[in-house]
Amino acid sequence: MGAVKTKRMPRAVREQQMLDAAVRTFGQRGYTAASMDEIAELAGVSKPLVYLYLNSKEDLFTACIRREATALVAAVRAGVGTDLPADRQLWDGLRAFFAHTAQHPDAWSVLHLQARTHGEVFAAEVTAMRDEIVTFVTQLIAAAAREAHRNPALPEREVAGLAEALVGAAESLADWANATEGVTARQAATTLMNFAWSGLGDLMAGRPWSPPEEEPLTRPAD
Amino acid sequence: MGAVKTKRMPRAVREQQMLDAAVRTFGQRGYTAASMDEIAELAGVSKPLVYLYLNSKEDLFTACIRREATALVAAVRAGVGTDLPADRQLWDGLRAFFAHTAQHPDAWSVLHLQARTHGEVFAAEVTAMRDEIVTFVTQLIAAAAREAHRNPALPEREVAGLAEALVGAAESLADWANATEGVTARQAATTLMNFAWSGLGDLMAGRPWSPPEEEPLTRPAD
Repeated sequence: MGAVKTKRMPRAVREQQMLDAAVRTFGQRGYTAASMDEIAELAGVSKPLVYLYLNSKEDLFTACIRREATALVAAVRAGVGTDLPADRQLWDGLRAFFAHTAQHPDAWSVLHLQARTHGEVFAAEVTAMRDEIVTFVTQLIAAAAREAHRNPALPEREVAGLAEALVGAAESLADWANATEGVTARQAATTLMNFAWSGLGDLMAGRPWSPPEEEPLTRPAD
Repeated sequence: MGAVKTKRMPRAVREQQMLDAAVRTFGQRGYTAASMDEIAELAGVSKPLVYLYLNSKEDLFTACIRREATALVAAVRAGVGTDLPADRQLWDGLRAFFAHTAQHPDAWSVLHLQARTHGEVFAAEVTAMRDEIVTFVTQLIAAAAREAHRNPALPEREVAGLAEALVGAAESLADWANATEGVTARQAATTLMNFAWSGLGDLMAGRPWSPPEEEPLTRPAD
């Protein structure tokens, strides 16, 4: 809250700049090929300062994973209004997810590709985030099932399996959307919503899920 | 075709035994922790013979990935009868996939966890297999769309996205099924078929997809 003297940049701000540069470098060049020289240069600081603040390439990469995992989970949670119908909550969550991964392709590459490809320690960091998202989606599906209050209700195990399927589908589709020229976040979200909500059977029968009419068109700036 | 003298085991047979031992060890202990001593012992051969035949731990792991990727793709293809309706083809393919991953959990761990966690070279091996499965599923969905011959047809890009979503969902669910006590291959396949064919909307409305009546109960032996 207090005014900060601007002679020197506060450490917290410098660290974020280093992480910005690191996410971009790791995401675009891969963990192995990325050099600390490159990251320091992109951040506009000396390499010793990067080591002073973030300790090692491993620790820097871990800090990137944690920051980007937190940001992704926060974006999805923020996108979902809890007082809406189940399909609308799901649609909002998917839109938030694909908007975030489209706007931050390097962060998504760090989380879904780099972190899982370079050893068990990094992979475990991402697993923790994934578990949080699966739990969130499980609650969403369980709430939708309660809302529909069908009898018999969907068994708990079935709900858990459906959440795993949905998260796996979203991850796969985010990779594909980021690698495929011209696929927007909204299109990826629509494809998955059609798949997840209406199923292939309804799609084949010409009954896709329809997004709400009042939908504002928010697209990634890329 | 000719009769083989059994004084010595043919090299091809020995190699398969080494690969059996390696897949089990890599799958259960992880690539890093697995030792060549352990693999040789489990295969009932000397460690120098493993190196003579398979060259290095890296080459042995690559050979495991290739063999298991080929086996998984073959199992899925063999499970699908091409003259059946689309939903039946999809169900048969999913059942074959989950039966294979349930019956060969170590192979699935090598393919979906170990190979992707230990460097870009191994990850690329698995990507080739995954691409083949995505292509197969894309053809399946495209055929189903033609069969339904709705107008307008599903655009090619939409079909590609749906295939990515389905494959990602299947991978995620196979991990979950193998890690969750008491989930059978048939249950996993049913969960995904409900999700993929009927969608959450129909499930919530109490309209799940129903497996064909004449279904024989083939379950993994675990």
